[in-house]
Amino acid sequence: MSSDLGKNIRVTIFGQSHSAAIGAVIDGLPAGEKIDMEQVRDFLGRRAPGSGSHVTRRKEKDEPVILSGLINGITCGAPLCAVIENTDARSKDYDALRYVPRPSHADYPAYVKYEGFNDIRGGGHFSGRMTAPLCFAGAVCKQILERRGVHVGAHIAAIGSEKDEAFDPVSVGPGLFEVIAQKSFPTISDEAGERMLALIHSVAEKRDSLGGVVECAATGMPAGVGEPMFDGIENRLAAAIFGIPAVRGIEFGTGFEAAEMKGSEHNDPYSYEDGKVTTRTNNHGGVLGGLTSGMPVIFRTAFKPTPSIGLEQKSVDLKQKTDVSLVIEGRHDPCIVPRAVIAVEAAAAIVLADFLI
Amino acid sequence: MSSDLGKNIRVTIFGQSHSAAIGAVIDGLPAGEKIDMEQVRDFLGRRAPGSGSHVTRRKEKDEPVILSGLINGITCGAPLCAVIENTDARSKDYDALRYVPRPSHADYPAYVKYEGFNDIRGGGHFSGRMTAPLCFAGAVCKQILERRGVHVGAHIAAIGSEKDEAFDPVSVGPGLFEVIAQKSFPTISDEAGERMLALIHSVAEKRDSLGGVVECAATGMPAGVGEPMFDGIENRLAAAIFGIPAVRGIEFGTGFEAAEMKGSEHNDPYSYEDGKVTTRTNNHGGVLGGLTSGMPVIFRTAFKPTPSIGLEQKSVDLKQKTDVSLVIEGRHDPCIVPRAVIAVEAAAAIVLADFLI
Amino acid sequence: MSSDLGKNIRVTIFGQSHSAAIGAVIDGLPAGEKIDMEQVRDFLGRRAPGSGSHVTRRKEKDEPVILSGLINGITCGAPLCAVIENTDARSKDYDALRYVPRPSHADYPAYVKYEGFNDIRGGGHFSGRMTAPLCFAGAVCKQILERRGVHVGAHIAAIGSEKDEAFDPVSVGPGLFEVIAQKSFPTISDEAGERMLALIHSVAEKRDSLGGVVECAATGMPAGVGEPMFDGIENRLAAAIFGIPAVRGIEFGTGFEAAEMKGSEHNDPYSYEDGKVTTRTNNHGGVLGGLTSGMPVIFRTAFKPTPSIGLEQKSVDLKQKTDVSLVIEGRHDPCIVPRAVIAVEAAAAIVLADFLI
Amino acid sequence: MSSDLGKNIRVTIFGQSHSAAIGAVIDGLPAGEKIDMEQVRDFLGRRAPGSGSHVTRRKEKDEPVILSGLINGITCGAPLCAVIENTDARSKDYDALRYVPRPSHADYPAYVKYEGFNDIRGGGHFSGRMTAPLCFAGAVCKQILERRGVHVGAHIAAIGSEKDEAFDPVSVGPGLFEVIAQKSFPTISDEAGERMLALIHSVAEKRDSLGGVVECAATGMPAGVGEPMFDGIENRLAAAIFGIPAVRGIEFGTGFEAAEMKGSEHNDPYSYEDGKVTTRTNNHGGVLGGLTSGMPVIFRTAFKPTPSIGLEQKSVDLKQKTDVSLVIEGRHDPCIVPRAVIAVEAAAAIVLADFLI
Repeated sequence: MSSDLGKNIRVTIFGQSHSAAIGAVIDGLPAGEKIDMEQVRDFLGRRAPGSGSHVTRRKEKDEPVILSGLINGITCGAPLCAVIENTDARSKDYDALRYVPRPSHADYPAYVKYEGFNDIRGGGHFSGRMTAPLCFAGAVCKQILERRGVHVGAHIAAIGSEKDEAFDPVSVGPGLFEVIAQKSFPTISDEAGERMLALIHSVAEKRDSLGGVVECAATGMPAGVGEPMFDGIENRLAAAIFGIPAVRGIEFGTGFEAAEMKGSEHNDPYSYEDGKVTTRTNNHGGVLGGLTSGMPVIFRTAFKPTPSIGLEQKSVDLKQKTDVSLVIEGRHDPCIVPRAVIAVEAAAAIVLADFLI
Repeated sequence: MSSDLGKNIRVTIFGQSHSAAIGAVIDGLPAGEKIDMEQVRDFLGRRAPGSGSHVTRRKEKDEPVILSGLINGITCGAPLCAVIENTDARSKDYDALRYVPRPSHADYPAYVKYEGFNDIRGGGHFSGRMTAPLCFAGAVCKQILERRGVHVGAHIAAIGSEKDEAFDPVSVGPGLFEVIAQKSFPTISDEAGERMLALIHSVAEKRDSLGGVVECAATGMPAGVGEPMFDGIENRLAAAIFGIPAVRGIEFGTGFEAAEMKGSEHNDPYSYEDGKVTTRTNNHGGVLGGLTSGMPVIFRTAFKPTPSIGLEQKSVDLKQKTDVSLVIEGRHDPCIVPRAVIAVEAAAAIVLADFLI
Repeated sequence: MSSDLGKNIRVTIFGQSHSAAIGAVIDGLPAGEKIDMEQVRDFLGRRAPGSGSHVTRRKEKDEPVILSGLINGITCGAPLCAVIENTDARSKDYDALRYVPRPSHADYPAYVKYEGFNDIRGGGHFSGRMTAPLCFAGAVCKQILERRGVHVGAHIAAIGSEKDEAFDPVSVGPGLFEVIAQKSFPTISDEAGERMLALIHSVAEKRDSLGGVVECAATGMPAGVGEPMFDGIENRLAAAIFGIPAVRGIEFGTGFEAAEMKGSEHNDPYSYEDGKVTTRTNNHGGVLGGLTSGMPVIFRTAFKPTPSIGLEQKSVDLKQKTDVSLVIEGRHDPCIVPRAVIAVEAAAAIVLADFLI
Repeated sequence: MSSDLGKNIRVTIFGQSHSAAIGAVIDGLPAGEKIDMEQVRDFLGRRAPGSGSHVTRRKEKDEPVILSGLINGITCGAPLCAVIENTDARSKDYDALRYVPRPSHADYPAYVKYEGFNDIRGGGHFSGRMTAPLCFAGAVCKQILERRGVHVGAHIAAIGSEKDEAFDPVSVGPGLFEVIAQKSFPTISDEAGERMLALIHSVAEKRDSLGGVVECAATGMPAGVGEPMFDGIENRLAAAIFGIPAVRGIEFGTGFEAAEMKGSEHNDPYSYEDGKVTTRTNNHGGVLGGLTSGMPVIFRTAFKPTPSIGLEQKSVDLKQKTDVSLVIEGRHDPCIVPRAVIAVEAAAAIVLADFLI
């Protein structure tokens, strides 16, 4: 179903941008797992970077309240449900939009699908706000993965034309993930981060928006995990990642660049290192035939520019059946990529935990 | 499961490259649908282009035999099973490879996952040969879609650095699909096709291989089809497409390019045309929030270069636990992209039929 | 997953008997459906019959709070989440039971499965309390079904050896359902109900418990709904009904009695009535080959006696690995069948709505 | 989907009674499992007891041909596909029935669902013949289970009013299963078997038919297997068993009888035996809260009398829209219960293997 993710660990997301609350039910977690709520809060805090104020304008505490599934902070085998209240929803911003779909938002197809009954306030169920419960579930899965030696990290690889350094696909590891997680702007190179921030500010001033790319890596996955054909690591990661609003593409390892390489360049030779089979390069991004190879799993996700911009746009009035002009009011991120970094980490953690448990 | 695809129309693929037969079971087809086997054979024929001999060296008739589900060529509601015999399997080519995984093939992770019991002959269940039953299922779904006004077409967008023209994302349609389907080398521009073929030949002579990009479009999908979050058009198409061997990336609409665009450039303004809501551009690739917008669905798939190359490569002997050199004998495509075109069409047709029925 | 039910309409149940709250997420509801919360509350009220006090001793208001999915009481297409607070949980009753499994409860297998981390308070996730969110989801689905002419009703067919009249399998309908729903003790024959109540009281006085049978019918289902083999009406109803605690058997139509009938007695002859194909008898219980026949769907569900009894029982101490005696303290229904009636209705409504939508 | 069963081990059944072939695809089998085809054939032989001729009149060799998934008789991790040719199909028997549904068969609802395109020859996809591939899959799963100490056996508990002895729910085991499997008529008591046979013959002479009950047991399942609520042992076994044609009911342990017992009678006290937790009685049938208790899993399945009888019956003509009389020609089992015994074993083996792997 649309709001369900996973097979063994199944995450159900509910809520709309402006409903009473949003939340997640996580079924299938192993019993006996300690969930450190401080760590969960830290992770969610990275999504809502009150500090910088550079990126998001909506203030929301995003404090998850546990309704079930934990006893004294330890999983009991029953579904874990957490709820996050929607406290800062200014619904009146959206009334004018009921019949005037915002370009490149889901408004128009949702209007058709739900025959006008969809919740238009803040994008309803299509809102980026729905990544908050996703990130909660990801935070839980990350703790479970880390206990098993699997670490997931991500950074902003690009915003507009400004690029960060890439992960080293062979040696990337939890140390670097930790360093990035501490930063208010998650890039490897601080200097690249500053350039990105400057770009965001300059575009925001023009009431325009920017897209970007997030690179994510997972280390410690044993070899041979996954299934061939339609249920492999790439299939499931891709299906999950496209659940994050504004994602337009995903590529593993060298990805689209691989299309321009020769086999002799792209193939990753095997060798034994400390008695363990490894590849000397990692163009394959840790996945072969849908299965992990034991090398870091690496993928990149493309995000389109935030469709909500302050400039006048052309749209239609679905009631009057006429063309109209539209100026979107309200608060909008000029670039959602910095916040999307942890949504990518979260989705990856859920999928990998699902495969591993 | 690994070999299952779809929800309402469910396709199960079975077989290995060198098993007695390969095949597909398609459950959930509407009853009363005429399946034109001539059209099915034509479609499968595009996968095995005996004509050009430029690309594949394995000769196989790929004649599907219907075991169930059709009565006088019409679906009866029971699962449709078709089987394709494997007649031209030279299994001895692979004996030397049991403990020496071919770089960038699934051999090593499969060895770990299946504890050495996996079928190494021709890549077993991981072989590109498994796209034959996928294409059969796609051929069936294409007929069902076309009867409902939905057409799916694809072409080689790039091989190595040589590029074809792109589909016009607004006006692309069945006429062009038809033209491409008639060509022995499926590009829009014949001249680009010739350059690609020349490149393939030159690389093949050096016993090396090439990757490429396939662009696929589907027209006629009504607006509002799909589900939000994890069960949308992109999620399901991506999950299916990554089931085709050698796929490394997928992008919708402007895809990774969107990451470098501003919102004002990327947003597709709405307007009424002949009483129908359309967008003047189609950067969104026909999908917004997981739902179709009514515009053509457009996506691009990156394929890595064929991992089987004739050059000496470094690998390991899993039994002796030593590093070894490896030269792969046997028949290999220097570039699987021309054959992959219809696998992409097939996977797309299955997914879209699944959503539409 | 364990707490998920349904395919098109998917219900996810969460909570434990003594967690902060319990609840349900319902995904896939059609948009634009008015949900009358008064009717929902009435339905839930039938589960917690404060009036009679004859059956349950736990007092709980069971007021569902809607977190998402409804706008002004109308479904918006997003998952509908409702939460019910657990206010009357006396957890200390259960501390002594951590290592001493109650006979015929799930305590022991849950201890093994969850390695002792399961929530033992009130039976945790295995508690009959989990039928409250199930009933909420059922109440929602009933309204959706009724709008489409499908009505679901149930009554107590037997408690211990005391039997109610049976539904007339041909003429049963919404009028009778309505009459039963108004009763504080849901039997067709008031006199049978009084005998059952007397039996419950007499057994309760001896600190013992009773089982029984619930008969359920659904009218108005069109013919031809369902799927053959493993996804038919019976398969899915059975899978749902066994999700209600204490269920030990399910039978459709004449059920186990059919095993003693001859074909000539059991077969239901067809005839046209008012231009509609009907059967003159309904031994088949409205389902043939997994598909609805257009006749009322009828099934019976057997419930075992409440395993919590006040008498001394033999058990084991899992920590000391010794045999011990056990007396269960706390509040327990001497017979859960009266409350189970609406759980059966709810599960049936969810399954049938899932098939119909 | 309708023809799919299972989650980790997924069985897909295809074919119709009179299609070219029928078969099964089994995905998710562990690699490295030896499948003894002699044992498979023996198991399938029990379904088609040519010997006695007392029960079935259709002669079919039912020789499964393996198309994929086995290498030298050992599973390789790829889907295992087996096909059984339909050689003895006399299709002309059915032509007269296209518009005259046979009472208590699936003909009428299938006609509605598939708009007349369904395969009516021999019941099509609804035929008892479809249990042949189910039994193949069951034979494979039985071997995998037995290697892990789990044994599944079944017998005819009743035919019409004639009853066999019941399994001892505590001490039942593989020895007795073996003895029953050797018999041409699978009862515990030979004398009961003779009475049943005599009854079948006498009813067959009157061109009438009989139903019955199959009792099935599985021993060796460890405690704690299964999931609570909707994905437990009972839910999944019930959903599978109702996939066998003519099943009308299923009950676990004491089943419907439990409804007439008191808690003090029904509860199974625990005790330690040889350091292992056991119950002294097994009224719970080896399942509590959806989870195995470690005691034998026991359930009973009710079969209705074969709906195909030689007597004149009343039906309708769907084309003329009139009432008509019908006499069914062709070969029909007067009682399918003897053959259903191994279908029940097979379905149980698939479900339990799915839980255990």
